[in-house]
Amino acid sequence: MTAAAVSKPDNTIAVEMRRVAQAAKDASRPLALADAATKSEALRAAAVAIRAQATTILEANNKDMLAAEDRNLTAAFKDRLKLTQDRVDAMAVGLEDVAGRPDPIGRLLDERTRPNGLKISQVSVPLGVIGIIYESRPNVTADAGGLCLKSGNAAILRGGSDSLHSSQAIADCLREGLRVAGLPEDGIQLVQTRDRAAVGEMLRQHDLIDIIVPRGGRSLIERVMEESMIPVIAHLEGICHVYVDRAADPRMARNIVLNAKMRRTGICGAAETVLIDRAEAASQLPGIVDDLVQADCEVRGDTEARAIDGRIKPASEADWETEYLDAIISVRVVDGVEEAVDHVNRYGTNHTDTIVTDDVKVAEVFLSGVDSGIVMHNASTQFADGGEFGMGAEIGISTGKLHARGPVGADQLTSYKYIVRGGGQIRP
Amino acid sequence: MTAAAVSKPDNTIAVEMRRVAQAAKDASRPLALADAATKSEALRAAAVAIRAQATTILEANNKDMLAAEDRNLTAAFKDRLKLTQDRVDAMAVGLEDVAGRPDPIGRLLDERTRPNGLKISQVSVPLGVIGIIYESRPNVTADAGGLCLKSGNAAILRGGSDSLHSSQAIADCLREGLRVAGLPEDGIQLVQTRDRAAVGEMLRQHDLIDIIVPRGGRSLIERVMEESMIPVIAHLEGICHVYVDRAADPRMARNIVLNAKMRRTGICGAAETVLIDRAEAASQLPGIVDDLVQADCEVRGDTEARAIDGRIKPASEADWETEYLDAIISVRVVDGVEEAVDHVNRYGTNHTDTIVTDDVKVAEVFLSGVDSGIVMHNASTQFADGGEFGMGAEIGISTGKLHARGPVGADQLTSYKYIVRGGGQIRP
Repeated sequence: MTAAAVSKPDNTIAVEMRRVAQAAKDASRPLALADAATKSEALRAAAVAIRAQATTILEANNKDMLAAEDRNLTAAFKDRLKLTQDRVDAMAVGLEDVAGRPDPIGRLLDERTRPNGLKISQVSVPLGVIGIIYESRPNVTADAGGLCLKSGNAAILRGGSDSLHSSQAIADCLREGLRVAGLPEDGIQLVQTRDRAAVGEMLRQHDLIDIIVPRGGRSLIERVMEESMIPVIAHLEGICHVYVDRAADPRMARNIVLNAKMRRTGICGAAETVLIDRAEAASQLPGIVDDLVQADCEVRGDTEARAIDGRIKPASEADWETEYLDAIISVRVVDGVEEAVDHVNRYGTNHTDTIVTDDVKVAEVFLSGVDSGIVMHNASTQFADGGEFGMGAEIGISTGKLHARGPVGADQLTSYKYIVRGGGQIRP
Repeated sequence: MTAAAVSKPDNTIAVEMRRVAQAAKDASRPLALADAATKSEALRAAAVAIRAQATTILEANNKDMLAAEDRNLTAAFKDRLKLTQDRVDAMAVGLEDVAGRPDPIGRLLDERTRPNGLKISQVSVPLGVIGIIYESRPNVTADAGGLCLKSGNAAILRGGSDSLHSSQAIADCLREGLRVAGLPEDGIQLVQTRDRAAVGEMLRQHDLIDIIVPRGGRSLIERVMEESMIPVIAHLEGICHVYVDRAADPRMARNIVLNAKMRRTGICGAAETVLIDRAEAASQLPGIVDDLVQADCEVRGDTEARAIDGRIKPASEADWETEYLDAIISVRVVDGVEEAVDHVNRYGTNHTDTIVTDDVKVAEVFLSGVDSGIVMHNASTQFADGGEFGMGAEIGISTGKLHARGPVGADQLTSYKYIVRGGGQIRP
């Protein structure tokens, strides 16, 4: 092979993604060894850079917005893409919040001394290299990059191609933070190519990238889970349920259903289905429907629910499997907590489900029987959020059972190692 | 489509594996809710059944052994396949040991009360359905099945086809144990078909199987990792290192190298490479080589090592990447701990690596710098074993960083859920 052939490979995207992943891997060891103060310094310096570069970031975002206009993208898409001075400030504040939290690395998880004198410590360590694949939401660049840095991981950020200018300006600030703190700036890398093939190449680098975190809609996440040769922390949709038991306080049931559905309809912790106990359905359902209809929420239900309240429209099988993310809710009458648990485990997405009841025994049946990352008793599903859990910023809510379940914050972006200290022990 | 067409599907293996996985999924919920005493009863009853059925198990094994003779399988293969009364007893004792250990389910991992009064508990729960794919080693049926049962998981066991009669007889005893304890016997299922296509079908059931654990040689594990649509707990080979630092006690260095290599050469925690600090290589290496040669171990090394000791044969680049699992070791002279760490991170498999030194600061550089699941100071790598760690029986040593790292016992075959208890809180 000639030198020219080497320098002009057929597949430039594959070569470029290989280079990016190798650079991240190389940066990951010094990052893993960085102490808490140095990582915090990098995060705070990144926040300073974001504030100092606000004009540059907003100009870059303006370029992306103009291109989005030309491409006739939807209003919702453009809203996610758009940055304002407030949103830029929020990114800086977010990085400072992350900087101020406890270091997730070097935590002593377990410690024991064996009869032969070996002292075994289990200590948290970074995962290594994290690939984040997200949509055209530039603020994710700062949020996700910051959590990776906090947890001592190198990050390969692949944002939606429509946000490339904005994300680049933000990633530059994160890299500036690393430089200021004396850490390798390749610890944060933004994929430069707009070509979607870059994602496919990224998902193949299993010897260099330790974990993939997709952030976005169902089609993105399904594509990533299908294609990836690297383990994925899955954040599937949230089909969340409120079960109103016969022993529910009627006022509490109304408040929780209304809040779980309508506080914000577009988040993954919003409720999509109400299950109501047959024993008190006739007494409880009309009040619940009153509140929902008043809040302009469409209510769909099974035959039994519709017989109780004529305002309820017919629901089909598909309704039980739909994440509306909108002012629509489905209602089903069930025969007590066992049938409620069966429904949730069959149609739910293992995200967040709540029971309203004053009967503690019935609550325990629900809490242990429902196979979801978050199960609640007498609380709104809208609390499904790392911040509300006191875990700080999160990268999403994992609906998988492997590694991390529920809110994924900096603590969850870690692995562990066993450190064994001896005095010359050999095994008999 | 006629009824006949429905009952004779084109792909009977796919249909059968779907049935097996669905049955496991159905059994997994009652298993997940079983209390500690019931699971222990099932394990003890399985041990009783294994002792009672010893003759049946040995007869079944005899069938497998006769077929293995006909197929001219290797002596090592037949040794792994063969059962004796002692080995049958050992399986029963193993199940009783697992029964006696603390319950891995329902452990309170974290607990906090939020300012709004929500009480959040993080509690360990089973993974659900675990697929175990292993070679023709019938005892794995009992060991792996027992760990899955202990951790409240349903198990789909797919042993090597040459061990089918033996594994079936053992699986029958585990199912008997489940029955005696009033648990669903489909919580343990042995794949009945010898066709290797069954493995491929199993690896596709990502909606029913939560995790795959391959146990066996490199080719099996690589095939599973490549093909699986289900997350895999990886147990790659162990290329383990002993680094002999300039500040090593010479007697300790000799003992640890000899033990790490020669106590048992066929286990994943056996050392494959010695790295020796240039500063004391000339003084330390000959004694180390004395011991190894005396124990009939072949020593290969780089040019510098060979210049110090003429008994060392030449090593090639391939030697640094080889898990010998035999009485062969490679030796490389390195320039202090930093170069040792670089070598381990480059050529190792993130399994187990040890440093011999009396210099605590140098030891810390090694322990934090080496990116392996188990890192040791002044101890033999042969201690890399769940039993030696006080964790009880294990299903292998994970070389991946996701979910479980190092020894994988019953505690590692769990996930967790967040239980949120409130008094009617809604999110503002």
